[in-house]
Amino acid sequence: MTQTNRQILLVSRPQGAVTPDNFKLVETPLGALGPGQVRVRNHYLSLDPYMRGRMSDAKSYAEPQPLNEVMIGGTVGEVVESNHPAFAVGDKVVGALGWQEYGTSDGVGLHKVDDTHVPLSAYLGVVGMPGVTAWYGLNKIIAPRAGQTIVVSAASGAVGGVVGQLAKLAGCRAVGIAGGPDKCRYVVETLGFDACVDYKAGNLYPDLKAATPDGIDGYFENVGGEVLNATLARMNAFGRIALCGMIAGYNGEPTPITQPSILLRSRLLVQGFIILEHLDVWPEALRELGGLVAQKKLQYRETISQGLESAPEAFMGLLTGKNFGKQLVKLI
Amino acid sequence: MTQTNRQILLVSRPQGAVTPDNFKLVETPLGALGPGQVRVRNHYLSLDPYMRGRMSDAKSYAEPQPLNEVMIGGTVGEVVESNHPAFAVGDKVVGALGWQEYGTSDGVGLHKVDDTHVPLSAYLGVVGMPGVTAWYGLNKIIAPRAGQTIVVSAASGAVGGVVGQLAKLAGCRAVGIAGGPDKCRYVVETLGFDACVDYKAGNLYPDLKAATPDGIDGYFENVGGEVLNATLARMNAFGRIALCGMIAGYNGEPTPITQPSILLRSRLLVQGFIILEHLDVWPEALRELGGLVAQKKLQYRETISQGLESAPEAFMGLLTGKNFGKQLVKLI
Repeated sequence: MTQTNRQILLVSRPQGAVTPDNFKLVETPLGALGPGQVRVRNHYLSLDPYMRGRMSDAKSYAEPQPLNEVMIGGTVGEVVESNHPAFAVGDKVVGALGWQEYGTSDGVGLHKVDDTHVPLSAYLGVVGMPGVTAWYGLNKIIAPRAGQTIVVSAASGAVGGVVGQLAKLAGCRAVGIAGGPDKCRYVVETLGFDACVDYKAGNLYPDLKAATPDGIDGYFENVGGEVLNATLARMNAFGRIALCGMIAGYNGEPTPITQPSILLRSRLLVQGFIILEHLDVWPEALRELGGLVAQKKLQYRETISQGLESAPEAFMGLLTGKNFGKQLVKLI
Repeated sequence: MTQTNRQILLVSRPQGAVTPDNFKLVETPLGALGPGQVRVRNHYLSLDPYMRGRMSDAKSYAEPQPLNEVMIGGTVGEVVESNHPAFAVGDKVVGALGWQEYGTSDGVGLHKVDDTHVPLSAYLGVVGMPGVTAWYGLNKIIAPRAGQTIVVSAASGAVGGVVGQLAKLAGCRAVGIAGGPDKCRYVVETLGFDACVDYKAGNLYPDLKAATPDGIDGYFENVGGEVLNATLARMNAFGRIALCGMIAGYNGEPTPITQPSILLRSRLLVQGFIILEHLDVWPEALRELGGLVAQKKLQYRETISQGLESAPEAFMGLLTGKNFGKQLVKLI
């Protein structure tokens, strides 16, 4: 019996904002599995801001997503057929099989995971790339010391939520920046941050100042734009900024850093990073994050859209901040 | 016989550009030397861009220069009277005795120097704070590797000239940015840089691109403003920027960083620094720099104005790029 795979292709590059017609849903027959290959039924797709960069063909750290091919992206699922000695039917695996119901892999980049104590979807979030991103930026760039004030933007998101919780575990004051009272309440009440500033309330700098009475020692940047300018103005001497995301600029509207002299005046360190270039830290980070999730010491939240066909709209929502926590697409 | 000291005081804070009436020349009698004190006849005053920051009372890394007191600044001179066991009449000393003909010190911050192989004035430049600034930013932040391209702004200046020459000694391609054909010719022909871009020629970005065919791996920033924006656009992945000066912004006209996303896209490191906070490196740096000067492996140039009364105008010239190499005031 020939099975059918459903896939979403990128068929055009966005001019400004991403639109539904950048994508196309297609049905394709699943071919026979070749030698050494493994077939995975994807359970969840991960949607992440970095995908927006890959959709453009501007010069970047990574090759652009090719047109008329399956959209890239992280996935978790279950092995349904295997000609590969390392994978058996029923294995749960995390990988980057893209926006499709079935992925076929030679095993490279596919990792078995244990969902006994950690839910499968968490391997795309808090115990996956977003979690490791948070862990690296906080521990390797910001290097917080107890008593310092650490601020993170997009604080209710998959990365930001982990940054603040790890900062709290390190004995710091954790302050989030998020959009809207619901997200801010979640950041404080569920994630345990000391404070959260609602950047949509129209009072960003005064609110941030009030939330950081001792200034800011470390800033984890997921957003860019005006939030970065407000935070820079509160940085203490020798502050460190881990630059992880510039979502505000992805649609081609760069927001300048208006007062660059603060970088010198406060002797700041700014370090941009891409977590896939720091694979050496992944095992240590994942071990620590998985342990914290299993012990319920790390909270997280997911926004789950249903069905492959919902992925484009969910992705557009992610880029405009409509998600709440890690954005996933559930396929099964 | 009562001797007279001549001093220049800061009597008002600049509103925008520095003007002559921010300063006042006064004559004061020299009092008797107290116990443990040493009196120095200053031979040279050092004029440096950081002084502009101290003239303002805006929040900064250092206390502002108080009004109606002698302008701060580095000096070299000769001990003319001493009640201090570590200093004898005739000793040559470097210190920070300010804009005056005679300085009186308790010895703290005063260091004996040897002018047998290194000219006295060099201790205010290439073998002084500017030289150590260059050494630190290049070696400790940029950390160049042979074959990389290192760019420095204000390349004909006291700091910039040393940065490029040390980069050449490290096997790098050294590219300067300076104002005008004379400075650029000096940077290439006398200092031995591989190329120099004249930012006044009105073609900054294309000229910089032509001079850095392989992009830029390390940038030593003395200037800020449009030069920083042009350089950022040429930075290679994992580039390092040592942020030492933002002279373009000192008059209260900040120039934004227009495309901050490059910081993330190229995973750049930016580190602001103040050399007085890194006293641990001074002995090693000064030893190396002094050795290179004595061996004639490090070239430098000085612009010397004559007499204490010339200091304000020379300082204003420094801030607008009129000097050529290290700006000094010769008192004797």
